[in-house]
Amino acid sequence: MSQIHALLNPKSIAVIGASADPKKTSGLPVSYLLKHGFKGPIYPVNPKATEIQGLTCYPNVEALPEAPDVGLVLLNAKRSIDAVRSLAEMGCQAAVVLASGYAEAGEEGLALQEELKAAAGDMRLLGPNTIGLVNLSAGIPLSASGALEVSELPKGSVAVVSQSGGILGALLSRAAGRGIGLSSLIATSNEVDLEVSDFVDYLVDDPNTKVIALYLESVRHPARFREVALRARAAGKPLVVFKIGRSEAGASAASSHTGALAGEDRVYDAFFRELGVIRVNTFDEFLDVPAVLVAGRQLAGRRVAVLTSTGGAGTLIADSLGVNGFDTPAPDHATAEKLRALQGDTPTALDRNPIDVTLAGLQPDLLRQAIRILLESDSYDALVVIIGSSGLAMPDLVVGAIRDSLATNNKPLLAYVSPYAPGTLQRLNRASIPGFSSPESCSAVLEALHFIGRPLLGGGESPRVSLPDLTALPKGSIDEAAAKQLFAQAGISVPPSRVVHSREEAERAAKELDAPVVLKVMDANLLHKSDIGGVALHLNAETIGQRFDQMVSDVEAHVARRPDTFLVEAMVAGGHELILGANRDALGTAILLGAGGVTAELFKDTTLRLLPERGALTLEQAREMMQQLTTWPLLDGYRGAPRRDTEALAQAIVAFSALAAGLGDRLTTAEINPLFVMPEGQGVVAADAVLVLEDGMEVGDAHG
Amino acid sequence: MSQIHALLNPKSIAVIGASADPKKTSGLPVSYLLKHGFKGPIYPVNPKATEIQGLTCYPNVEALPEAPDVGLVLLNAKRSIDAVRSLAEMGCQAAVVLASGYAEAGEEGLALQEELKAAAGDMRLLGPNTIGLVNLSAGIPLSASGALEVSELPKGSVAVVSQSGGILGALLSRAAGRGIGLSSLIATSNEVDLEVSDFVDYLVDDPNTKVIALYLESVRHPARFREVALRARAAGKPLVVFKIGRSEAGASAASSHTGALAGEDRVYDAFFRELGVIRVNTFDEFLDVPAVLVAGRQLAGRRVAVLTSTGGAGTLIADSLGVNGFDTPAPDHATAEKLRALQGDTPTALDRNPIDVTLAGLQPDLLRQAIRILLESDSYDALVVIIGSSGLAMPDLVVGAIRDSLATNNKPLLAYVSPYAPGTLQRLNRASIPGFSSPESCSAVLEALHFIGRPLLGGGESPRVSLPDLTALPKGSIDEAAAKQLFAQAGISVPPSRVVHSREEAERAAKELDAPVVLKVMDANLLHKSDIGGVALHLNAETIGQRFDQMVSDVEAHVARRPDTFLVEAMVAGGHELILGANRDALGTAILLGAGGVTAELFKDTTLRLLPERGALTLEQAREMMQQLTTWPLLDGYRGAPRRDTEALAQAIVAFSALAAGLGDRLTTAEINPLFVMPEGQGVVAADAVLVLEDGMEVGDAHG
Repeated sequence: MSQIHALLNPKSIAVIGASADPKKTSGLPVSYLLKHGFKGPIYPVNPKATEIQGLTCYPNVEALPEAPDVGLVLLNAKRSIDAVRSLAEMGCQAAVVLASGYAEAGEEGLALQEELKAAAGDMRLLGPNTIGLVNLSAGIPLSASGALEVSELPKGSVAVVSQSGGILGALLSRAAGRGIGLSSLIATSNEVDLEVSDFVDYLVDDPNTKVIALYLESVRHPARFREVALRARAAGKPLVVFKIGRSEAGASAASSHTGALAGEDRVYDAFFRELGVIRVNTFDEFLDVPAVLVAGRQLAGRRVAVLTSTGGAGTLIADSLGVNGFDTPAPDHATAEKLRALQGDTPTALDRNPIDVTLAGLQPDLLRQAIRILLESDSYDALVVIIGSSGLAMPDLVVGAIRDSLATNNKPLLAYVSPYAPGTLQRLNRASIPGFSSPESCSAVLEALHFIGRPLLGGGESPRVSLPDLTALPKGSIDEAAAKQLFAQAGISVPPSRVVHSREEAERAAKELDAPVVLKVMDANLLHKSDIGGVALHLNAETIGQRFDQMVSDVEAHVARRPDTFLVEAMVAGGHELILGANRDALGTAILLGAGGVTAELFKDTTLRLLPERGALTLEQAREMMQQLTTWPLLDGYRGAPRRDTEALAQAIVAFSALAAGLGDRLTTAEINPLFVMPEGQGVVAADAVLVLEDGMEVGDAHG
Repeated sequence: MSQIHALLNPKSIAVIGASADPKKTSGLPVSYLLKHGFKGPIYPVNPKATEIQGLTCYPNVEALPEAPDVGLVLLNAKRSIDAVRSLAEMGCQAAVVLASGYAEAGEEGLALQEELKAAAGDMRLLGPNTIGLVNLSAGIPLSASGALEVSELPKGSVAVVSQSGGILGALLSRAAGRGIGLSSLIATSNEVDLEVSDFVDYLVDDPNTKVIALYLESVRHPARFREVALRARAAGKPLVVFKIGRSEAGASAASSHTGALAGEDRVYDAFFRELGVIRVNTFDEFLDVPAVLVAGRQLAGRRVAVLTSTGGAGTLIADSLGVNGFDTPAPDHATAEKLRALQGDTPTALDRNPIDVTLAGLQPDLLRQAIRILLESDSYDALVVIIGSSGLAMPDLVVGAIRDSLATNNKPLLAYVSPYAPGTLQRLNRASIPGFSSPESCSAVLEALHFIGRPLLGGGESPRVSLPDLTALPKGSIDEAAAKQLFAQAGISVPPSRVVHSREEAERAAKELDAPVVLKVMDANLLHKSDIGGVALHLNAETIGQRFDQMVSDVEAHVARRPDTFLVEAMVAGGHELILGANRDALGTAILLGAGGVTAELFKDTTLRLLPERGALTLEQAREMMQQLTTWPLLDGYRGAPRRDTEALAQAIVAFSALAAGLGDRLTTAEINPLFVMPEGQGVVAADAVLVLEDGMEVGDAHG
């Protein structure tokens, strides 16, 4: 940790490859260090110069008078490796490597990156291919970003860590323009060593940082991210994430319904939600939301007062809040009375919200009092104050009036600026009043506050699930009967069944089962057996024989080999159809619960949870999952239909997740589809089962 | 029309109630007229002054030296009426009344507003309760809005008409701040006379206006709006609408499923979509979209090139485009070759999109050529050019390079500015290059361009539907048998049935129908009969008797009177369940098609069309409707299921809409729920029918 601290707070800095020309990109970092007032020694290293911007220049790293805390390396990809090696040998704490041409550039670059990593030894590395970092709190820019041309760094309490270097300048410039203060700004880029989670871990303890905003392309080490995210939450430092790569098709959308339904981006959604990490969906919100969180005010409910001195904007804000599920109730009687007293004889209607105090608009003292009355009112959980054109004439007075009211209590207070007034927005944010120019932002930040204030989902303990021995399971797909046996051992009911190899055995099995039966081809490598004529329903001892023969030839026609194993199984009637799946992807194992049947399939009514590092889902999580389905009412006695055995379903979800957890990294996909939920007291039945372990590959025309 | 022209282009203006104090609200209009250079005579009217800002002041309207083209009335609600009367008598063309306290203030105000209207006679009125209007093209402000303090009016080709006066100043100020030019800005507010549609009608012929943006609270006269919207479309002038009141519960959501499913805001959605009116969903888009449309460039497809000199922002834009369904394909070989030739020896990868020309970023000539190559490439339908920090250093050169490329062809070209740079955005827009600072705006405006470029839905002729005589139908609810007879006469099949009044008749009917039958209580006033035990399925001649007795007592228990009429009907099996409804609300008659059955019900899978002023939907519209359902695949042979008789469904939708059209204003609600769509060639069957005319009220515990 002390090395990361040194990286962000170096006492001395070497700039390897610094140019004497301050206009060149490699000349900028020294300029910026000087410009923003770095107090410690700066050592430019360049064999072609003896002095750079008044500083002694050294021919090489070895010639430096001391080991610098940080080496900022501006050389090309190949030469950076040597510089990094020299810095490491000298005892430098950390190096920042700006060069591109590493892992992002293909095979050859990847090899160079490995070399770079090896050269660094115990020294920490930021990058390569990074634009660097800026510690705004301490005024230390270690970067060549043109955004550092800004005359004053916008200091504040939001730390930004970005996996994209290219976006860093835009964020610095936008924060400065909006009056939003930052504590540090770090681009991790290729993450050969230090990654986003390392900085989150550090920033949780950074006294200058209250909110951590992450611009992510992917999460490299989910377990580590989970750990630091929960640490941040425990420390009361909200994490805000903007995640790109949202539109890329998930790599995992292949071997099962579960994989296709889960989708990479939905798994990220679940991952962040479970950790209490706020995911923002627009680039503007990536700064808007942290700006609000920094204020540290608590939103207890969804009732919002809108105080306006310009009618149109008030209606606009109230409409946007309404669309986004916030209430804008009229003031209660007591509050209305207080407002009325304030306005004197003015006949303004105060029984409605937006609360229009047009005539108070130009009187800061009235504004101040109205704000206090609304913040203190039991009718409201938050307040949006609208600043119209009149407020612009004397922004300091208006901003002052709002700021003075902040101390009266801890409810969120936002300002919406109706006319074009970037200066006023800047002034508001600088005065710790989150200010917005878009109605949609007001709703989005309130939603973020509402999310962050709620407890994490899925508390409670996982009940013990006794699992069979999983170590003996073979690689690849396991056949339906074997998979069902496994699920049954974990406590999930399956229908009575017989494995058969001939028409005669099938007829005997149907007779023994003494019920309508299902006949299914059984082959661990055929996952989509309905599509190849390998499933027949509603059979009995009389009809199964002929159907058996037909299935043999249908399946043979599709896969060009004669199937020899079949399952005869008691048919499940009267169950509500769901799908329960587990899919392993980059972020871990996702458990998916979805509505089954053709109609529901079209609506993709599913919900996801990621398995915790160790262990299963809890019963509470399982219950939350089912209740999040749009089709939940169908389980819950919708329109007089029988209530379903949801407790058995919860148990089955937990057991299934325990099995998935037990399989750990070996799991590729597990799926029960359909899982029938029977009427209350009658349990659930797994009517089909798929299990694919490790490199399990499908063969044949399984997707046909 | 000439009066509206005079209102927007007055040769002389009287300002009634002008204050001598230029700081007072009533002093502002004269100041603004002078400030923005109105050339004609201005006549302040105020009995307490003889001169105002150097202009002769008149004691009253009668004393004016001529009839002014426009009277701008700044008096209070009561006194405005007299002024308006005097102006009208004098021969003034139009008056603008700013006072509030009219219809928006309740009963008394409404009476005043009627008086105001009467006082105006043939003179046109804008308002009351309006902030006025600004003709920016001619530099004529007729308003007291503080936004007119702006030193220069942002002239251009976007006309804004708003039903909210309060929002006008914000729009003027934001347009000016963004460099977006306006032709005129009009607040209609209470619309006692001139309404939004009147101005649209005028602006279609206004040579200064290319795009018309409407800020709406409601559409007062849908037929008139429809007419002018289609006129605007025919003239190639896009209409862009931002509609508030989105979150209000529709007043019509009462007497039927159709009403509840339609919802006021969804009806507006359908209304605008059918007219080719672009509906924007955020306040920012309300200016963003017109700014793009003004450029008049055509989007032919969804393939977008992103040209960037800053990697991070390029990825951000491409991601946002991807999320919104746009493609960002890599350049084709020929295009990549041309780009490569441009870059010389620089080893930049040009086989991907975003196309990164980092090194060209500072060379306007290279940028110019790259833009041309991409605009001319057959691989792309539009281009987004990203301006990074480097571009900010020399905005004129960059803006110039982009502007010079516009003439090479007519594909949309947008600029995204990555750092905070309001000045550059302003410069871009002024140079007719739509510039944005939010990635989401880029996607939104491209979507708007895509929408506007598509032909209106639902061409073709309505087939003739022979309707029964509708004039004799009584008010209120019609019973199921009567409603079905009506639908059958219009050509929609209904099941064979018998009306019965006793257990014995029911048994006889079941025997005659010789099939599984349904028994339903029949009472025109009981619309939700399933909820009160008034529907029983799967009966036959043996079982119906006992069930009949039970139904009598169940229904009696609910509605406290003994039911005496029932319907015995052949049960429909094997049909796919839909709901087909018609609901009359403020915008007209909405025809709703939706998925039926409990599962689909939870997903509210519905689509809406508004009936044209006269006549039914066309077959093409009917087919579009069914194909828009998420559950359309279930009609279309999903997963090997039988294809449904969609042609019969289309015919039924048309016939149903013809019946609704025939009923005109008398219709409250018509509904077939369920409508069963049988396998191909077997038609559709209306299994239940509801028809409520005019003031039809439900009685009993129908909503239980």
